[in-house]
Amino acid sequence: MAVELQVNGVDMGAVQNLVGALKSDPEKLKSVWRSRVQWKQGFRNEFSSREHASIAVDEPTVLGGTDTAPNPAELLLGAVGTCLSIGYTLNAAARGITLAALDLEVEGDIDLGVFTGVAEEGNPGYSDIRVRANIKSDASPEAIQALHEHVVRTSPICSTVSRPVHVSTEVVAL
Amino acid sequence: MAVELQVNGVDMGAVQNLVGALKSDPEKLKSVWRSRVQWKQGFRNEFSSREHASIAVDEPTVLGGTDTAPNPAELLLGAVGTCLSIGYTLNAAARGITLAALDLEVEGDIDLGVFTGVAEEGNPGYSDIRVRANIKSDASPEAIQALHEHVVRTSPICSTVSRPVHVSTEVVAL
Repeated sequence: MAVELQVNGVDMGAVQNLVGALKSDPEKLKSVWRSRVQWKQGFRNEFSSREHASIAVDEPTVLGGTDTAPNPAELLLGAVGTCLSIGYTLNAAARGITLAALDLEVEGDIDLGVFTGVAEEGNPGYSDIRVRANIKSDASPEAIQALHEHVVRTSPICSTVSRPVHVSTEVVAL
Repeated sequence: MAVELQVNGVDMGAVQNLVGALKSDPEKLKSVWRSRVQWKQGFRNEFSSREHASIAVDEPTVLGGTDTAPNPAELLLGAVGTCLSIGYTLNAAARGITLAALDLEVEGDIDLGVFTGVAEEGNPGYSDIRVRANIKSDASPEAIQALHEHVVRTSPICSTVSRPVHVSTEVVAL
């Protein structure tokens, strides 16, 4: 008999296969991700990963861009929010919680002093990021709160932002 | 006489206006950025910022997704890389360096143990991120290296990743 393994549209069969494979060969837990960035003109850039279509990035006109696309600060919030959304979907499925609707609002604060050269010292990046997740489901508020805490704790991108990451850089003059 | 203020396609007039405005009113240094995430189905999500078109996000099939778009880990690397690219373009323009070409390769390592539930403890996010910037310009290797060091030090998104950011979250059961 075929067993229905789709919960919230998540292919739980694929997830269970992955977990089985990871448990039997922990080497597979090590994942490497890549993006390539191509400068176009001014502040317009495109980046792409694997074989997926490239994504445009720009800056608002007030920052000297042409505002044809979101900027990197907005992309980062999108990465945080979509990672959490995927975490909710996956972990809700694993707990037997059916989601009827899910959306997230993510916002954060950047002091532009260092980036613009107005300030010599300080934090150039986000100081605070705030996330609000709106969930409609068949679960109790307590079950939703427990799901939420697990998702935030185990989110790769939320963790990347909240912890210091070692970043190494090099420049090659062509 | 009209002065040509376009360097590397950057509207240096707009940048200089912004810097002047920021210096005269430091309150304006405080910027707030936002993204909204809408869950579609399974691991498919879309996020958007301001009035820009939404951007699709998914996961590879090996992780249980349908692989219709990049995943959040790849988006984060795109945010880091495009922020650095914009920093190179801006600061090269400010230094009178004309860029002929610029691209970046960004990659990073995530141990999938915590996210997949295979491990109870550990870092769910990126442990290391590596950036390689390839620059073709009229500047000396020394000038490119100095530009590089300034850009990395002042990049909002590179700083967001390399420093711990305070992230606050709430969930609302609709």
